Amino acid sequence: MSHRTSTPPEAAGPVRPGPGARTALRPTVAAEILDGFWHTRREVNARVGIPQGPSLLESAGNLHNLRLAAGAAEGVFQGDYPFVDSDVYKWLEAAAWHLGRTGPAADDVLTGEVERITALVTAAQEPDGYLNTWFQVAKGGRRYEDLRWGHELYCAGHLMQAGIALHRTTGRKELLEAAVRFADHLTAVFGPDRQIDGFDGHPEVETALVELYRETGERRYLELAGYFVDRHGHGLLGGEAYCQDRVPLRRQENVEGHAVRQLYLLAAAADLAAETGDGELRAACERLWSAMVASKTHITGGLGAHHDEEDFGDPFELPTERAYCETCAAVASVHFNWRMALLTGEARYSDLIERTLFNGLLAGVSLDGESWLYVNPLQVRDGHTDTGGDQSARRTRWFRCACCPPNVMRLLAGLEHYIATTDDRGFQLHQYAAGRYTGAVGADQVVVSVHTDYPWSGAVRLVVEDAPEEPWTLSLRIPQWCARHQVSLAGGGHLPATVEDGWLRIERAWSRGDEVVLDLGMEARLTAADERVDAVRGCVALERGPLVYCLEAVDHPGGGLDDVLIDTGRTPREEFRPDLLGGVVALTAAGYRRPAAEEGWWPYRTFRSSAGAGPAREPGSALPLTAVPYYSWANRTDGAMRVWLPTR
Amino acid sequence: MSHRTSTPPEAAGPVRPGPGARTALRPTVAAEILDGFWHTRREVNARVGIPQGPSLLESAGNLHNLRLAAGAAEGVFQGDYPFVDSDVYKWLEAAAWHLGRTGPAADDVLTGEVERITALVTAAQEPDGYLNTWFQVAKGGRRYEDLRWGHELYCAGHLMQAGIALHRTTGRKELLEAAVRFADHLTAVFGPDRQIDGFDGHPEVETALVELYRETGERRYLELAGYFVDRHGHGLLGGEAYCQDRVPLRRQENVEGHAVRQLYLLAAAADLAAETGDGELRAACERLWSAMVASKTHITGGLGAHHDEEDFGDPFELPTERAYCETCAAVASVHFNWRMALLTGEARYSDLIERTLFNGLLAGVSLDGESWLYVNPLQVRDGHTDTGGDQSARRTRWFRCACCPPNVMRLLAGLEHYIATTDDRGFQLHQYAAGRYTGAVGADQVVVSVHTDYPWSGAVRLVVEDAPEEPWTLSLRIPQWCARHQVSLAGGGHLPATVEDGWLRIERAWSRGDEVVLDLGMEARLTAADERVDAVRGCVALERGPLVYCLEAVDHPGGGLDDVLIDTGRTPREEFRPDLLGGVVALTAAGYRRPAAEEGWWPYRTFRSSAGAGPAREPGSALPLTAVPYYSWANRTDGAMRVWLPTR
Repeated sequence: MSHRTSTPPEAAGPVRPGPGARTALRPTVAAEILDGFWHTRREVNARVGIPQGPSLLESAGNLHNLRLAAGAAEGVFQGDYPFVDSDVYKWLEAAAWHLGRTGPAADDVLTGEVERITALVTAAQEPDGYLNTWFQVAKGGRRYEDLRWGHELYCAGHLMQAGIALHRTTGRKELLEAAVRFADHLTAVFGPDRQIDGFDGHPEVETALVELYRETGERRYLELAGYFVDRHGHGLLGGEAYCQDRVPLRRQENVEGHAVRQLYLLAAAADLAAETGDGELRAACERLWSAMVASKTHITGGLGAHHDEEDFGDPFELPTERAYCETCAAVASVHFNWRMALLTGEARYSDLIERTLFNGLLAGVSLDGESWLYVNPLQVRDGHTDTGGDQSARRTRWFRCACCPPNVMRLLAGLEHYIATTDDRGFQLHQYAAGRYTGAVGADQVVVSVHTDYPWSGAVRLVVEDAPEEPWTLSLRIPQWCARHQVSLAGGGHLPATVEDGWLRIERAWSRGDEVVLDLGMEARLTAADERVDAVRGCVALERGPLVYCLEAVDHPGGGLDDVLIDTGRTPREEFRPDLLGGVVALTAAGYRRPAAEEGWWPYRTFRSSAGAGPAREPGSALPLTAVPYYSWANRTDGAMRVWLPTR
Repeated sequence: MSHRTSTPPEAAGPVRPGPGARTALRPTVAAEILDGFWHTRREVNARVGIPQGPSLLESAGNLHNLRLAAGAAEGVFQGDYPFVDSDVYKWLEAAAWHLGRTGPAADDVLTGEVERITALVTAAQEPDGYLNTWFQVAKGGRRYEDLRWGHELYCAGHLMQAGIALHRTTGRKELLEAAVRFADHLTAVFGPDRQIDGFDGHPEVETALVELYRETGERRYLELAGYFVDRHGHGLLGGEAYCQDRVPLRRQENVEGHAVRQLYLLAAAADLAAETGDGELRAACERLWSAMVASKTHITGGLGAHHDEEDFGDPFELPTERAYCETCAAVASVHFNWRMALLTGEARYSDLIERTLFNGLLAGVSLDGESWLYVNPLQVRDGHTDTGGDQSARRTRWFRCACCPPNVMRLLAGLEHYIATTDDRGFQLHQYAAGRYTGAVGADQVVVSVHTDYPWSGAVRLVVEDAPEEPWTLSLRIPQWCARHQVSLAGGGHLPATVEDGWLRIERAWSRGDEVVLDLGMEARLTAADERVDAVRGCVALERGPLVYCLEAVDHPGGGLDDVLIDTGRTPREEFRPDLLGGVVALTAAGYRRPAAEEGWWPYRTFRSSAGAGPAREPGSALPLTAVPYYSWANRTDGAMRVWLPTR
C-alpha cells in the first residue's frame, strides 16, 4: 500500500533543501526516535536539560539583557561576551524541536516559557530589525564597529534558526517574523554596494540565511548568504585564519583557524552548493572535509587541537591532554556533515556523524543532563581534573561563555532529523537509532521502523511499515569501523544485497511487514594512530562499535593513570554492566602499572635497538584495565582519564 | 713550586661563599677561558651581544624610564612590565664580568657606557634607597601594592648583583652603594615585625641579598634573605604555585609553578644552606633537584613545560612543540646547580650545568650574537616557524619582555667562574672549557690549564701549571652521558685513578708541567625517554657528547620534517664540517620520509599486534637525516626543527 501525494510533504527538521536543490538525498518527512540509546539521552535532555534553560538564562543575565534593551528593566549589562543573546536563541531552538516531537499542547510549561522568552526577544528588537543587547546596552548602540569579534550577525543567525524551528514545529510566527525583520535589515546594510562590505568574524548567519530562504522563498537571503561566504578570505577583517579571512574558501587546502567558525562556514558552503549547484563550492567542501578528517580529527570526532584561539592546529597535531575539541565544534561538525550527506549521498559523512555523536559530542553533557564540558580532552593527568574556568576537566553547571550547553540541547532535541533520508529510488538509514522514519520515495511514502539495542548490540531489525508497490532500494550504512556484517530477511528469502562505498543496498519489491535483520560485528578492537600523530605514538585506543573507550582513575585505585601500560597481545573482555554509568558495555584489557622504583635521576636512557621500541625493562605489576565509553567519563568522581594507552 | 699565602685569595665570580660557609667546594680564585668552543661564544658575546646593550636599552625605553624617575626627562613610561629596570641591571652585570676579564682599561667604550648608565641608575634612586621606575613613574609612587606581580624586590636583587659584580671586577663602588641603600631600605620595611610581612612574587632578591652579605659582611642581609625564603608558601601572596606560595619550600615535594621563580628561589635556598648550615633547607634543595631532574627536565636541560603561566607542568609532562624552556630558566638552572655543586661537591649538578649550557641555554642566542629565543621548543612543525610575539620560533632582535638576552649575556660573560673548584684536598674540573684555572688548595695554590677541542673531540689535555709539593687530588668530572673514558699521564707513569659518583679522582704528588690526557668517548648515540613522557614515546633523540642534536628543514628539502622516521638499526655517521654553522660535527642517520600517498580518509587504523608497535607498512622513501647541534638551530633560514625522531 502506498500513500501518493501530489508533492512530497515538507521535512520538519532544521535542514530542508528547497524544491530546486541539487542534493542527492532528502531528509525524512517524519521521524521519531522511540527507544534505545538515543531515546534515553533525549529524555534526559527533555526532562532536565531544556527545562533548566530559562532559570539559567535568567541567573546568567541573558534575559535581563533583553529586558534592558527593551527598556523594561534597570541595571547594567550582564555577561562578558557580545554573543550572550545567542544562548537564548539556541535554547528557544532546542525547545522548538522538543515541542515538535511532543506537540506544543503536551508541554504547557515549556510552551509558556517559549512564549514568554519570545516576547522578551521581540520587545528588545529595534524598529529596523537590529538586535544585539551587548551593542544596544553596553556599547551605546554603536553597531558593526567590530565585525571580527562583535558576533552581531552570528546572533542574528541563531535568531533565524530559532524562528524557523518554532515555525516548523509549532506554527508560531512571532520569532520567525523577528528573524525576517533582522534579515531584511541585513540585506539593506550589507553588500558590495551597500553601507558595509564585510561579514561577521564568526560564521553562522550564512547557513541561517540559506534556511530562511528555504523557509520563506525569499531569494535575497540566499544571495546574502552567498555574498558573505565569498567575502571571507580577502582580508576585510584583517586576514586572520581565526576569522576565516586568510584565504577564500574556494582556494583553501585544509581547515584552519577557529574550529567552530570554520565548520559553520563549511555548513553554509554546503547549503549554498545544494541550493545553487555551485560545483566549485561543493568541491571545496569535499576537499576540506577530506583534509580535515585525514589529518585534524581526533579519534572521538573531536575537532580543534588548540586551546589558543580555539584553533584547528596543524595536520596531525592532535594532542591528548591539551586537545580542545570544543563541544560546539562537535555540534558544528554534525551540521556540516549532515549537509554533505544530503548533498552527496555518500556514507562517510554519516560515519563521522556517528563517531561524533557517540563520542566527541555526547561527552559534552553529563549523564544526568545537569552539567557540561566545554572542552573534551582525551587525557586528564593525575591531579589535573579541575583546571578551573570554562575549560575545566570537571563538569560545570553552566559556563561564563555558555555557547555549548544550548547547542547540545538543540542538536539532541532535533536528532531524529539526522537519522534517515530518501531519494527517488529508495530509503537510506544513516544512524542505527531505534524509531520510525518516514520519507518520500518519488511520489510515494516509505516508512521504516528500526529496532535495536545499538551500540551495545550490533543486531538491528528493520521493519518496512509502509512502502510503494514498485521495487525500491533500502540502503543501510555499514560503519567505517565495522569489519564484518551479515544481513538477512526475517523468515528467509533471497536478499540481493551489495555493498558499495559504505552503503549496503538491497533493491527489491518490498511489502509492508518485511523484516530485515542486520548484524554488525561489534568486537572490541585496538586502534593505532597514524605515526605522524606525535601525541599518541606507541599507544593504542580501545574501541567497540562506534564507541571510543577510556580509562578512568576511579576504576584503577592505587596510583592514577599516568603510569599504566596496555598489553596488546590479549583480547579485551566485554561485559554489559547495567549498574555502571546508566548501563554500558565495559571492556577489561590486560595491562601493567610501572613500578615507582624505576625512578632514575635522569629520564633519558640510551636506546637499545635490540629491544625494539625502547630500553628492555620489566613492564611492572599486572593491572587489569577497565575501560568505559568515553562519552560517560567524568560522571562519577573527579580523577584522571585517558583514551590513548601506551603499549607495553 | 707553591705560592703560599696566609689566607686564600678571594674568588672574583658571582658566587663567593663566605669564610664560614659550609660548602664542600670553593670557586676558583682566578679563571680564564682562553680557547675553544666557549671562548668563541664568549667572544661573540663580548663583541656583539654586550656592546649592543645600551642602544637596545635606549630604544626600548629602559634608560628613558630611569631619566623620568630622576626628573631628567619628559614623557611617559615606556614598556609593558614593572621589571624593565632589571634589564639594565643585568646588562650592567654582564658588562662587569666582561670588564673583569679584560680589565676596565682595555675597553674604554664599555667602561664609559657602564659609568654613564650607572649614573642614570643612581640618579633615579629615591633618597630612602627605593628604586623602581614603573612604580615611581607609571604608578604614582605607590610602592609594594602588588607584591605578586610588582617585581620591585626582584629588580632590587638584580641591582645588587650588578653592584656586586662591578665592585668585584672593577673596584667601582657607586652601584654597590646604591644596592646597599636599597637593601637597607628593604631591611627597614620588610620583616615579621616591620611595615610589610611578605615577599616578592618573583624570587631573585633572596640570592642577591645572600651575595650582598658575602660582599659586605652585613649579616642582616642574610637574615632578610632567609626570612623571604621562609615566608613563601604560607598564602601571603594568595597561595599560588605561580608565586612559589602554595607550600613552604621545606615541605615541597617537586618543583612547581613558574619555572624561573622556582629556580631563583632554590638558588637562594642553596645559598642559605651554605651560609647557615641549615640541613633542612639543603635536604629540600636536594629533594627538589632530584624530582625536577627525574621528571620535569627536557633532554636539552630546558625547564618549564607550559606556556601557560611559564609553569613547570606535571611530572613527565614534557611536550616538544609546546615546550616552554625559557632561556631565563636555563640561566636560573645554572645558578641553582652551581650553588648545589659548591654545597655538596657532587658531580651530577655539573652534569646538568653542562647539558644546560650546551643545549637549552646556548640555543637562546644566535651564533652571531644578534638575536634571541625566549622559548626553546624541541620541535617546530612545518610552516610554524614564526608564531609571533616574544615566544616565536624565529629569532628576535629584542623582546617586549627582554629578560632573557641580558641574562644570557651576564652568564656567558662570567662563565669562567663555573668551570673549576677546589677544596682542601685538591682541584676539581667541572667543565671541559679550554683555559687556565687557579684555586686554593688548603693554603696553597693550584693552577691547571686545560687544552681541548671539546665538545667536537673528547680529548682533553690538562697541564699542572703550579701546585704545592704535597700530594693532592685532581678530580675530573666523567659526564653522565659518557659510556667509556681513558686517562693517562703524558709520557707514561702510574696514574692511580678511581671513579666515584661521576668524579675521576687522581691523587698523587704533582709536579709543575705534569700532563694528564683524558679521552672521553664521544660516539653519537640514540637516546630514548622514559615511557611516561607521552610527547616522545616511540621516538629517539640523537646525542653526541654533551650535545643534543636536531633536524632542521633546511637540510631536508622536499617535504619538511613532520613525516620523517629514523632507522634505529644503523649507527649515525659523524663528520666535522668547518663550513657549517661556525663549524660543527654533523650527524647523518638513516631515515625515511613517509609517502604522501599513504593519506587515508581516517588517520586511525586497527592495531596489528603481530607487527609490534603499529600497523605493518612500508616506511616510505629513504631519506638521510642530517642532524646538527640543537644550540645551532634557527641560524640559517626559517623552517621546521625537531629533536625527537619517530622510529621506524
